[in-house]
Amino acid sequence: MRRFFFAAVLFCTSANLFAQDKDSVMIRKIADEVLTNGTAYTNLRYLCKQVGPRLSGSTQAEKAVRETARMMKEIGADTVWLQECMVPHWVRGEKEEAILKMANGTKKPLKVTALGNSVGTPVTGVTASVIEVRTMDELNQLGETGIKGKIVFFNHKMNPTFVRTFQAYGEAGIYRFRGPSMAAKYGAVGVIVRSLASNLDDHPHTGATGYIDSFPKIPAVAISTNDAELLSRMLKLRTAPPTLYFKTNCKMLPDVKSYNVIGEIRGSEFPNEIIAVGGHLDSWDLAEGANDDGSGCVQSIEVLRAIKALGIRPRRTIRAVMFMNEENGLKGATQYATVAKTDGKKHIFALESDAGGFTPRGFSISSSDAVRAKIASWKNLLYPYGVYEFLDFGGGADVSPLKDVGAVTAELLPDSQRYFDIHHAETDVFENVSSRELHLGAVNMTALVWLVSEYGL
Amino acid sequence: MRRFFFAAVLFCTSANLFAQDKDSVMIRKIADEVLTNGTAYTNLRYLCKQVGPRLSGSTQAEKAVRETARMMKEIGADTVWLQECMVPHWVRGEKEEAILKMANGTKKPLKVTALGNSVGTPVTGVTASVIEVRTMDELNQLGETGIKGKIVFFNHKMNPTFVRTFQAYGEAGIYRFRGPSMAAKYGAVGVIVRSLASNLDDHPHTGATGYIDSFPKIPAVAISTNDAELLSRMLKLRTAPPTLYFKTNCKMLPDVKSYNVIGEIRGSEFPNEIIAVGGHLDSWDLAEGANDDGSGCVQSIEVLRAIKALGIRPRRTIRAVMFMNEENGLKGATQYATVAKTDGKKHIFALESDAGGFTPRGFSISSSDAVRAKIASWKNLLYPYGVYEFLDFGGGADVSPLKDVGAVTAELLPDSQRYFDIHHAETDVFENVSSRELHLGAVNMTALVWLVSEYGL
Repeated sequence: MRRFFFAAVLFCTSANLFAQDKDSVMIRKIADEVLTNGTAYTNLRYLCKQVGPRLSGSTQAEKAVRETARMMKEIGADTVWLQECMVPHWVRGEKEEAILKMANGTKKPLKVTALGNSVGTPVTGVTASVIEVRTMDELNQLGETGIKGKIVFFNHKMNPTFVRTFQAYGEAGIYRFRGPSMAAKYGAVGVIVRSLASNLDDHPHTGATGYIDSFPKIPAVAISTNDAELLSRMLKLRTAPPTLYFKTNCKMLPDVKSYNVIGEIRGSEFPNEIIAVGGHLDSWDLAEGANDDGSGCVQSIEVLRAIKALGIRPRRTIRAVMFMNEENGLKGATQYATVAKTDGKKHIFALESDAGGFTPRGFSISSSDAVRAKIASWKNLLYPYGVYEFLDFGGGADVSPLKDVGAVTAELLPDSQRYFDIHHAETDVFENVSSRELHLGAVNMTALVWLVSEYGL
Repeated sequence: MRRFFFAAVLFCTSANLFAQDKDSVMIRKIADEVLTNGTAYTNLRYLCKQVGPRLSGSTQAEKAVRETARMMKEIGADTVWLQECMVPHWVRGEKEEAILKMANGTKKPLKVTALGNSVGTPVTGVTASVIEVRTMDELNQLGETGIKGKIVFFNHKMNPTFVRTFQAYGEAGIYRFRGPSMAAKYGAVGVIVRSLASNLDDHPHTGATGYIDSFPKIPAVAISTNDAELLSRMLKLRTAPPTLYFKTNCKMLPDVKSYNVIGEIRGSEFPNEIIAVGGHLDSWDLAEGANDDGSGCVQSIEVLRAIKALGIRPRRTIRAVMFMNEENGLKGATQYATVAKTDGKKHIFALESDAGGFTPRGFSISSSDAVRAKIASWKNLLYPYGVYEFLDFGGGADVSPLKDVGAVTAELLPDSQRYFDIHHAETDVFENVSSRELHLGAVNMTALVWLVSEYGL
């Protein structure tokens, strides 16, 4: 530790040294406040246990709007307001079922869950033979001859060798997002997608699919990774092939009115320069949305709380934003950016936390090289709190539209090893968040936001 | 990521560049092997669920010796053997009880657990009034007048502002380790120590206490942090003070024979130069010892497995060592070092993993500055797998005695935020270990051990 500091300091100019020393004292205060008196964990418990799953358009999402507004008022934000937006209202309906029917008459139930935004099956379900593919290439090679009338089983594993698990998610995600339409193009009647999960488990992981309008919309489910393995084995048996029956009861209802929730501490010198920090308030319906993205919401509220508690008067305006509808529409983020274009203020920086409430490692930043270098020059200030890398891609989904108004966008990079154990599954519950990890993320978010407020970008 | 590599490479000489490129290919192979085919998690499940708690001298500890020896034989270690050592045999006996008796007659049960190695109470328990102290200074100021005949309640919180939680453990640990004797010095009849836990919870956390022979040995328990808060509040009521009754049933039996378990892959060029990598096989009795230190054991076995699976012929001998009795005696480690002094071989490096199976961040190294600099020069090889810091203290308890035979000692530094939620408590179970985090630790351990085997120190 001592040694590291010595090495780090060597890279600073002596003018910087003085500023960084003052800044390190302030950031130590921020850390002490958050680690000692932080309320992010308590707020998260409330959001998970008293509000619950918060799918866009649901009554729980409505309640989450009210409750996070209350939280921000209680911690003394200068202004708290709701920003209206229309959101899709997809409902799952009754629990799905899937049964593999073997040629010898035995039946094996499989654990599945409808993909978000997908259409439901007819009330009689879908029954067809199953064709397994690992890649889009395999699908395309089979073509209409091999696919028509069948259920396509996309059995693409997340690559375990990617240490940054979001790379594996990015690679495998296409099967969930585009698989249904790609299969429908060749006449498939349904789609089963292997869950985007790092490990073998019994929980189907949902998530949005994105139909392409020019192809029929066919029903689509995710299957647990254990049952994906089972199904794959069954399909390879040297007997008459099994058929699969599955039934989903989901549907898309008309759009409903919802809200982004915004709390603000006004800047003392540049009140029209906005620094936004946020997470998304909606979640999937299978669990409490603890890591995705209750964490990001309560961390963002904690940024405001810590600043108020320490009596800091930020030079620029700091806003916490609870974005609505990240999971299946991004309507809240789109609306937020639309307003930001015309409200006469300037968003200079927008930071999101939407990769789980895990221990922080860095930030990803979308900006010019010069701006990223400026942020990276604060590394030795954040290093004692676990942040050491500044990557050149990213910014969460909700803040990305703010690039269009000239904001530098960024995202907290927590450790990603556990994320795809819980992502979009029934395991995304409060118990799978660590208080210290969550608060340490909030420490770094507050510190970075404060530095941008002090020094601009 | 791309950017980081560019920066890192600038520090390398061109000669190093070629070597590091070859090495990075090998370490990528190691990582792919461990992350794809690793068996550490499966072995840990076995150790936790089929063997269970492994307190020194217990039948489960015996079984753990046999089973880890089997695991190392199965993965093809050149030699696997048991190294005899005598270990203390402390037993908890029936579950403890503690009841706070208020002046108005109401009774409140408190969650406590006997400290390891502590003496039991008389069969009638201990009943006395309670005096709370936060520090040793407060204890000393009270002296015999304030302490005699009472139960001392050490209510020292772990400092939440230490980001490296082991620093907080180091500071607070003295109350568990020396509190009982310090209180006995002034005539206390019993001791209650606030659990060494990062957060408020209902689980008492045990751990060894260390009696000083010149003072009476008095019974000592840890109390859950929630109940420590409760007890503190009750003691502050403006009524007649409550009394506390507690009963423990623990005792120290005569030493029994046990074993370190050692597996080895012989070096192809320097077979007498030993690189040891290990964890401790014993655990506390309250849970499965999943993180403490089942993780370190299965990661060390994984080091051998990965090397064998990849067909690597290491230049120096690589040993995995399951040390016995770290928790309440260190007898296995002492015996291992004693043998290492006289067996005609030279231990050049000894690496322990005993800080939980969490996501890796670095290594701590006890060595000369030159050797640490050599190890730190491998940073860009390990960085893609999450390791970025090389601290100048440490080496786990089990490998520390090997400093006397000239070994460089080191310890894996996983992220420490969750450790003191589970440490020595009933929450240290398999379910609280992440497969990817555990295996990523094993990747870095294997990589470092392989580098030392290739290049020496």
